[in-house]
Amino acid sequence: MRKILVIGAGKSSSYLIDYFKEKASSENLHVTIADVSLKNAKAKVNGHENCKALEFDVFNEQQRKAEIEQSDIVVSMLPARFHIEVAKDCVEFGKHMVTASYISQEMKALDKPAKEKGLVFMNEIGVDPGIDHMSAMQVIDRIRDNGAKILLFESFTGGLVAPESDNNLWNYKFTWNPRNVVVAGQGGAAKFIQEGTYKYIPYHKLFRRTEFLTLNGDGKFEAYANRDSLKYRSVYGLDDIPTMYRGTIRKVGFSRAWNIFVQLGMTDDTYTIENSENMSYRDFTNLFLAYSPNDSVELKLRSYLKIDQDDVMWDKLVELDIFNPDKKVGLKNATPAQILQKILSDSWTLAEDDKDMIVMHHKFGYEIQGEKRQIESSLVVKGENQTYTAMAKTVGLPVAIATLKILNGEISSPGVQLPISKEVYVPILKELEEYGIIFSEKKVPYLGYNPENVIG
Amino acid sequence: MRKILVIGAGKSSSYLIDYFKEKASSENLHVTIADVSLKNAKAKVNGHENCKALEFDVFNEQQRKAEIEQSDIVVSMLPARFHIEVAKDCVEFGKHMVTASYISQEMKALDKPAKEKGLVFMNEIGVDPGIDHMSAMQVIDRIRDNGAKILLFESFTGGLVAPESDNNLWNYKFTWNPRNVVVAGQGGAAKFIQEGTYKYIPYHKLFRRTEFLTLNGDGKFEAYANRDSLKYRSVYGLDDIPTMYRGTIRKVGFSRAWNIFVQLGMTDDTYTIENSENMSYRDFTNLFLAYSPNDSVELKLRSYLKIDQDDVMWDKLVELDIFNPDKKVGLKNATPAQILQKILSDSWTLAEDDKDMIVMHHKFGYEIQGEKRQIESSLVVKGENQTYTAMAKTVGLPVAIATLKILNGEISSPGVQLPISKEVYVPILKELEEYGIIFSEKKVPYLGYNPENVIG
Repeated sequence: MRKILVIGAGKSSSYLIDYFKEKASSENLHVTIADVSLKNAKAKVNGHENCKALEFDVFNEQQRKAEIEQSDIVVSMLPARFHIEVAKDCVEFGKHMVTASYISQEMKALDKPAKEKGLVFMNEIGVDPGIDHMSAMQVIDRIRDNGAKILLFESFTGGLVAPESDNNLWNYKFTWNPRNVVVAGQGGAAKFIQEGTYKYIPYHKLFRRTEFLTLNGDGKFEAYANRDSLKYRSVYGLDDIPTMYRGTIRKVGFSRAWNIFVQLGMTDDTYTIENSENMSYRDFTNLFLAYSPNDSVELKLRSYLKIDQDDVMWDKLVELDIFNPDKKVGLKNATPAQILQKILSDSWTLAEDDKDMIVMHHKFGYEIQGEKRQIESSLVVKGENQTYTAMAKTVGLPVAIATLKILNGEISSPGVQLPISKEVYVPILKELEEYGIIFSEKKVPYLGYNPENVIG
Repeated sequence: MRKILVIGAGKSSSYLIDYFKEKASSENLHVTIADVSLKNAKAKVNGHENCKALEFDVFNEQQRKAEIEQSDIVVSMLPARFHIEVAKDCVEFGKHMVTASYISQEMKALDKPAKEKGLVFMNEIGVDPGIDHMSAMQVIDRIRDNGAKILLFESFTGGLVAPESDNNLWNYKFTWNPRNVVVAGQGGAAKFIQEGTYKYIPYHKLFRRTEFLTLNGDGKFEAYANRDSLKYRSVYGLDDIPTMYRGTIRKVGFSRAWNIFVQLGMTDDTYTIENSENMSYRDFTNLFLAYSPNDSVELKLRSYLKIDQDDVMWDKLVELDIFNPDKKVGLKNATPAQILQKILSDSWTLAEDDKDMIVMHHKFGYEIQGEKRQIESSLVVKGENQTYTAMAKTVGLPVAIATLKILNGEISSPGVQLPISKEVYVPILKELEEYGIIFSEKKVPYLGYNPENVIG
């Protein structure tokens, strides 16, 4: 029996664990599902003979080391900041490791010891980051292998609600960690390059500097820039590329309304509000508006941010109940971001049979034999319900497939890495197709980065 | 001879050093003026027999310890982040210390060891912080000693250019460390309380949420909120006060135009710009605007931030030459804030005989025997020229006076402190009056915090 330790049985783990269960008997797998909630872990085990549920605290060093020592490979689905303790133990006990998170500086520092022990530490192998890297590199390598020079790479991904479950004014629901949505874009200016010109967008303008994109059959979308597109130039081997942009997809109009929260300061996660617990939603909103002995919270907000009364942005705010004087925040010493997350969760939580949707779209511009060409590559994946989401599928399956391939020695290059080599992306993308995760590709006229032509 | 070690002979030290020279013979003082530039230090000594110039590197541990050990009291006029090394040595060798900077967490941690050795570590004894604390506490203590309850405290300070030297559209020049002006307000939301309601302003809205104030004879001013007014409630013993606000004064219209830089992202000091050195001022401005193959930098900026062509804000930007394609930035790996500082310094540096001006204004609202009253207290100090500035005077004199009084045992309460006790502020404010630093006080009708009544 080969022993897989999965740490974290949250939202993302349904497809991941099902994959292991499906392969358990043919591949001779035993899976320990470790979660801070034994109930969560048990629900995922669901009586499967090759699986064991375990109540697990990542900060319990003794338990953590014991479980890692007993396993052959460790999958960490914890929030990114908790991976490092697991990773250090994996080095100590000589175990491979897989995560869907961005490689942190601390993780990167383990590259040498992992290599010395021949360990594969595969990261960024969910959907974004993950499938985006793999699907992009497959096209980039193919174009380059044909002798072309790459001029433009733009890549967009979004976790959205599927059209059939899209029943609020924001055209949005939480399909992933809500906290990440609330603080998205924070921590520094967004950086990218367009036609050889560097561009920097501060956080407070990020949601007003969107790009539009049209997907055949799925309508018009917008995207806001990810934090650092520049660093992917060297990762993808595109150091001199004139246009490099990565963005997050939303339905048109989301960002303009989200900007209201940014402007008010409601997404700030760096300080706690005095007396937050007994505050109403209305009191919370009023914290960010000027004092007035007479004027209403509504009028102050409209005047401050210049929102017309017949603007749909106004209806979006009202829909979220942020002016309600009776609903209590109920969170002690909370940051604005934590309170906003609570308010949004009232409205944006997926219902039992709601379907979500993952949308990914790449643009590749290149020059070959003096001719400029462009390829676009798109993916749309829909979820089944609140548990079997497109997000869980597109994050969990690449993680699961990579885990098994590492265990079987099919992926064997050691060190801290992300899935950009052919050894990794070719077999994984191929297997993902069996699960309906299939990109469609088409040739389009070369446009370069030219905002007036992009909107089509 | 009592030995004073002054570390840092920059802009702020002219009055400070003159004060020591003036008292050198009657008070039996020897002053070592230590600066990273020997030329600076020598210029300050200017041949005075009781003074010595010293080339000094605060990170040269051996030199630092040797000089501190030989002195009786140390005045650190270094940037705030460098005080701590000096302070630790002062503890080790049992020397008093004086700074004009805010008490850092690290400095605070020295309170116990300083007390154990009977050392006075006096901080926040410049103008703001400094004279603001002392002048406010003098009125607050007097009101409270009369049995009143304090309902409102608002305090405003600004370092401005004097009207006779005010010849640019911004009505502003650098009279202090330009870097502090460029990054002012960063590092977290501004926090204050008005009529019992907490208010939080994010950085990107700080310069659009100004308060107006009118000073008799000196016209109308505006103020933006300082970062944390709430913490002064406990410092001043005003824990239950319904209105507490501290702000920075500018001439009306400055903040609205400064907001342009904030919105663009030009004040960001957290990342470096690629290829900054050979960039023109115009290229720099264009970094923060959308890419376009055709549109001008000017039109893109106007459209982005909705500035009408006949708005004086536009003329303010043009005056600073930010659209100049020929002027080079000339700074390697610079942050946006560093480049902006360079651009502003071209226009905002004090000329040889320019005069600056310090303006301070306090409002105290209180209730006594069922009656609500209000007092306003104001200070205006003008500088003489580029060297003998009002800023150098109002920062340097309280530091110098405190230093001598500590040396003479007139101020003797040990520990890390700021000037809020009568022992400290009474004699210092009295002596400052001899130098023309005099507050004028008047009774006004009680208004509370009511923005509609404040303007007038």
